[in-house]
This record gives sequence, structure tokens and C-alpha cells, in this order.
Amino acid sequence: MSTEAPRRVPGSGPAAVRVFTTVLTDGPVSRVDVARLTGLSPAAVTKAVRPLLDAGYLVEGELEDRPASVGRPANPLEVDADREFFVGIKATADELVGVVTDLRAVVRRAKHVRLRDHDVDHVVDAIAKLTKDLLSTDRAFQRRTTGLGLAIAGDVDHHAGVARYSPFLDWQNVPIARLVRKATGLETFVENDVKALTRAEQWFGHGVGSHSFALVTIGAGIGCGLVADGQLVEGAHDVAGELGHVTVDLNGAECMCGGRGCVETVASERAIVEHLRSATGEPELTLTAALARARTGDAATQRVFREAGRAIGVALATVANLVGPERIVVSGEGLPTYELVEEQIREEFGRQAYGAARCDVITREMPFEEWARGAAAVAIGQLLAAERL
Amino acid sequence: MSTEAPRRVPGSGPAAVRVFTTVLTDGPVSRVDVARLTGLSPAAVTKAVRPLLDAGYLVEGELEDRPASVGRPANPLEVDADREFFVGIKATADELVGVVTDLRAVVRRAKHVRLRDHDVDHVVDAIAKLTKDLLSTDRAFQRRTTGLGLAIAGDVDHHAGVARYSPFLDWQNVPIARLVRKATGLETFVENDVKALTRAEQWFGHGVGSHSFALVTIGAGIGCGLVADGQLVEGAHDVAGELGHVTVDLNGAECMCGGRGCVETVASERAIVEHLRSATGEPELTLTAALARARTGDAATQRVFREAGRAIGVALATVANLVGPERIVVSGEGLPTYELVEEQIREEFGRQAYGAARCDVITREMPFEEWARGAAAVAIGQLLAAERL
Ligand SMILES: [Zn+2]
Ligand SMILES: [Zn+2]
Repeated sequence: MSTEAPRRVPGSGPAAVRVFTTVLTDGPVSRVDVARLTGLSPAAVTKAVRPLLDAGYLVEGELEDRPASVGRPANPLEVDADREFFVGIKATADELVGVVTDLRAVVRRAKHVRLRDHDVDHVVDAIAKLTKDLLSTDRAFQRRTTGLGLAIAGDVDHHAGVARYSPFLDWQNVPIARLVRKATGLETFVENDVKALTRAEQWFGHGVGSHSFALVTIGAGIGCGLVADGQLVEGAHDVAGELGHVTVDLNGAECMCGGRGCVETVASERAIVEHLRSATGEPELTLTAALARARTGDAATQRVFREAGRAIGVALATVANLVGPERIVVSGEGLPTYELVEEQIREEFGRQAYGAARCDVITREMPFEEWARGAAAVAIGQLLAAERL
Repeated sequence: MSTEAPRRVPGSGPAAVRVFTTVLTDGPVSRVDVARLTGLSPAAVTKAVRPLLDAGYLVEGELEDRPASVGRPANPLEVDADREFFVGIKATADELVGVVTDLRAVVRRAKHVRLRDHDVDHVVDAIAKLTKDLLSTDRAFQRRTTGLGLAIAGDVDHHAGVARYSPFLDWQNVPIARLVRKATGLETFVENDVKALTRAEQWFGHGVGSHSFALVTIGAGIGCGLVADGQLVEGAHDVAGELGHVTVDLNGAECMCGGRGCVETVASERAIVEHLRSATGEPELTLTAALARARTGDAATQRVFREAGRAIGVALATVANLVGPERIVVSGEGLPTYELVEEQIREEFGRQAYGAARCDVITREMPFEEWARGAAAVAIGQLLAAERL
């Protein structure tokens, strides 16, 4: 596992996104270098740059050794971070996490609020109130925010803006994008939370310049976002990346999904807590207490964490063997326990992955703000990818 | 599992391939219908059709109720199957299987020869001789064959035309495309055998019209080809679809790959035979004899086949959960045993697949000629996809 800089590979996807993310990562950067870095032709770069300049998303810097008035097209390009702001909100079972980001997806403000009720109207009201609070501190936020991204766990039809099934919120077929748009006045996009995070990594994070990568999230559940050939794998029916329910033990325990021996039966937070309690015979043992005990060398608790690590390592290898990404980014709220499981993850991954030596595995902390940032990134991506340019 | 007609979804990929495969499947078909079926604009269809007509790959049929001389562009399009022929060769450890196909990838001639030696020069000579034999019976074959596709198991760099590692042939870094081109005079393309078969299904088989599908082959090994977003998933380093080495039993038997509890430790032909022998205590028991015995109701042999079926069912579910294809096509030489394992495959798949009800699983027999046809399809695809038009 390493933290090397990503090897840059010409991506697919809309030219505007490729140009924008390249300028974001490497700016100030000349058009010639953008062409080289994206694999686009100079003509295609020029064509993609124009509307981005016109809209003020990109600006031309000045060359140091000549007057700006020369206005040569060789002037380097930069992102104007403050040109527009974006609201990103991640809804969990018991709270909303909201952020305001700039055009670089840098978090400029963050706020949590408790969610007392999962009633749709209540959640929509809470989102509207949180949005108002987030934007209230800064005039520029208020004036230059038009888009809102919402990330929720479960089955989301992002084209239609519908939460088809959200287990934590107990929602079915809620046209949430329309409702939030009406309540906030902002153009609203909803996406599955893991896919939102994956898009954020693809455009603004460790996936930049990767033709293919996987984002694996560890925590309450275990999820996976896949980018192949520069495209997010959406699944024929919006089902994809269900890594938590991939079988690692044909004869294992029953899972809530109805399956058997799923990764989550060994490595989800709930499974770990259950196994810790039965291993110690202490029905009230908490994860935090067990973590502390394992760190002092307690064998019974360590064994439970090790088994979770093995299941995760095997799951990462399954992703590598089937889809063959350049890199796997492991992240999530589950990472505080990571030091306890990393050795097992690495060992199992090394044993099971066919192209192990070739697939880079890195880890990345992912507090809930990052998930909200992912939601904002979806809104930024919509802006860049399509209609408004 | 069903055998319904595929739901047609506008594919990605080069317009020429989409137009050609649509005419192939639905022809004679009007340009208007081609546009509707492919999701391309009428202008894009017209543009893609012209070079295909000019090269004689497509021809315009005549409308029945008006004279051909009217020559309206509404005349239906058809593939001229005999316009060009292709050689496809699959190399296994002990034989070469060769076919000649027409432009529809219909096999017009097939021939097997034993392979006595894996020495590169010997194999190249054998390929050249087989090619000559295949083409010798028909003047049209000799005159109108310019492309040859070669399919081999293992790690193939198809861009460079190099067999990087082929376990059955014991080859490393053999520039086989160049060598075969020199020996046969035909433009030669080499591809991993499962990927070749997947392209054949994508262009000429059950994958036509599918935005995403998986081809799973069962036999000596267990392989998988994936098409996502209309594109073959190649893997960052040409590693992808290694379904045989996905873990289904964390605590299972050691695999030849160095891993543990891989699908192939339960469900490869070799594993099945080994387990049959140890279950019956008969070290000489053959697969054929065991099959016969299982069909008469013998419990010990049936149990071994059932376990193989469970592992395959779980493996298919892993593909569905991670990548979410519209359909999975199960095929391979292992299919004679399929009736014995189908129930377990279906049961495990139904239990483990998240979107089970949505992902269509169909089976397809796949004799070695089909693999050779896959190799020919790679050559046809190269013709359509690129430079020569
Ligand atoms: Zn499950
Ligand atoms: Zn293996």
C-alpha cells in the first residue's frame, strides 16, 4: 500500500470535465499542457475552454515575463474558486451534515443538525433550514449559489431525482430532488452516497487522472464505487458496488439481506460489535471500549478485528480480480479501527489479488463532511458536464 | 433464468459497429429503424453507413413495391455476408481449433489439429498450415480473407499483439501477432480467449443491444468477460474478469494461484474430479463416469456437483452485485454437467444477488468452435471499429 501520486492517464468523459479537473489539479497550466495531460487535441481543449472562460469558471493568469495586454492564448489557465458555491448535504438516519464548497470542492463551511424524524416533509424542512443557515454567513454564498447536491444511502435514481429505497430513512419512491428544489430554490441533484463520494474522488480526489479506480467505504455498511474506462459504473438498474453483500464465506452466517456469509456479516460495525460481545461474553461491550482493549493486546477482541480485516482484504481482492482498477481507495467512518485490521487486509489482499503488485491500495480518512462534500461534487459535476455550459 | 430476447438499449462504442451489428441482427432494416434501434441520430447513421456501403460490407436491398431504380435512401440495409471472410483460431494446450467465418460471424468451415509441441515456431507453423487448409477449399475464401484472430488463455496485450503470459502454452512475452502475420500474410489480432468470446457475444450474440452484460465461462478454468457502458472492461493492466480466483470461502482450500477458497478450488473441472475421487474413494474415477453415476441418483457424487453449483451461483451473484449487468450469459465446455448444478446455481444466485429479479441469467453451449469464432469476431470488430473504413 502506498500513497504515491497517481499516474496520469487520459480519461474519458466529457471534455469540459477533463479540462476543468486538469486545470484544478495542475493549474496554473497552459493549454498545451492541458492537451498533453488530458490526451485531448489542442483544438478540443480550446473548444472546451471557451465556455468555461465565458462563464467565469476558468480565468487566464498572466505570464510573468510579458505584459498581460499581449493576451496570447498561451496564458496559463486557473480555476476561479469563488466564481460559484455549492451546497452538499449527506442525510444519515440521525443527522444531516451540510457543507458549502467552492468551485474547487473545497469545504468553506460545515454544519451538523440532528434529524429527529424521517417523515419526508420534516426532512425537507430540515434540509431547507440547514441550507439557509449554511449560506447565511456570507453574502457571496447567498449570491453565487445555485446548486445543491444531496447524498443518501440506498437505491437512488439520480436521473429522475428519486430516492427509490432508502433503508435508513425508510423511504420508498420519494421524489426528493423536486421537493428540495421547491423548498430551497436551488437546482437539486440526489445521488447514492457512495456514488457521490466516488464522483468526488474521480473529479477532485485520488481518482483524478485515473482511467479506472475503486472507492471502498467501510463503516455501518461496506460499499464500493467503481470507475471503469473513466465512467462511473452505474449498474443496469442502479445496482452496482454492493460489495457489502458479496459472499466471502459460502457457509457463513446469515445476513440481513437474506444472503449468507456476506462481507457485512463479518466486517460491518454491527457485526464487529456482535462478535466482540459474544467473544468476550459481555453483552454491553461498546466498539470504543473493545478498540481500547484490543490496542492493549487483548487476544479475544483482537481476533474479532482480525477476522473483519481478512474479510475486507478478500473483498478488495475481489474488486481487483473482477474489475482490475488502477487503484483502490479505502475510506469511511470505520477507519479509526483501521490500524487494527490493516495487516490482515494487506495480507489477504496480497494473497488473493491476481494483479496484486499492480493495483495500488491507499487509505483515506472520510469524516461525514467528506460525504457532504461528495454531494456538492455531484452538483459541480452536473454544472460542468452538461446543459449550463 | 430465461431465454427472452434482449431488451434493446442504445449502446456506446463506435457508430460503425453499432450500425453494423444492428443491421446484422435486424436486417433488412431501414435507416430510420437503425437510428431508432441504435439511439444514433439519422445524420450519424447516414454518415456511418456510407463507408460500410462503399466497402461493400452493407448493401441496399430493394423495396418490394417499388422499382429499385428509384434508389431512395429508405431502401433497407443488409449485411453482405460473403463480402469478406475471417480466420479465427483458438489455441489450447493440446490443439488448435480453426474456423472460417463470413462477415456475419457465421462459421463456414471448421477444423481441429493436434498441437504436439508448445515451441513458438512450431505453433506458428501449425497455425499457418491450419489457415492454409481452412482457406484451401474455397476460392472465395482465398480471395477475400485478409484478417485472422487468435484467442489464447492468459495475459494478452492485444494492442501490442503480445502474449505476455500463457500458462497452458508456457509462453512469456511472445510477439505472436507479428509472427503469425508473417507466416500467413493475414492481418493478425491476438486477444485473451474469454475477452474474444465476450466481444463475439457483444457484437454477434446475446450481448447485442445490451448496454452491460457479463459472459461467464465454466470449464477447465472459470473466466468472466464484462461489458459495462457498452465497453469491454479491460482492467488497468489487462487483469479483469478473474472470476475463477474470487474467494467464496475465506477458510477454504488452497488454490494453485496462491489464494484460498477461490471459485476454482470448488468448481473447476480439476477440482470437481479431485473431490469426486476423494468422495468416492476411487482414485481413477473420471468426470464422465461420475456424471453418469450422479444422474442415476448417487448421493456422494451428486453432493460434489452440488457444491460446485453453489460456488458458481455465488460467483455469478458477486458479478451482479459489483457490476450490475443487465444479463449474465453462462457458457463453456463445462455445460454438459450444467443440468446437475443448475438448481444450486439458481438457488445461490437468487439468495445472494441484490438485484436478482432484475438481472437475467441465461445459458449457452460453447464448444471450442465457438471460441475460434470469438477469435474471428475480434478480427471482424477490428475491421469495423477502425482504420480500414
Ligand atoms: Zn448480505
Ligand atoms: Zn485461485
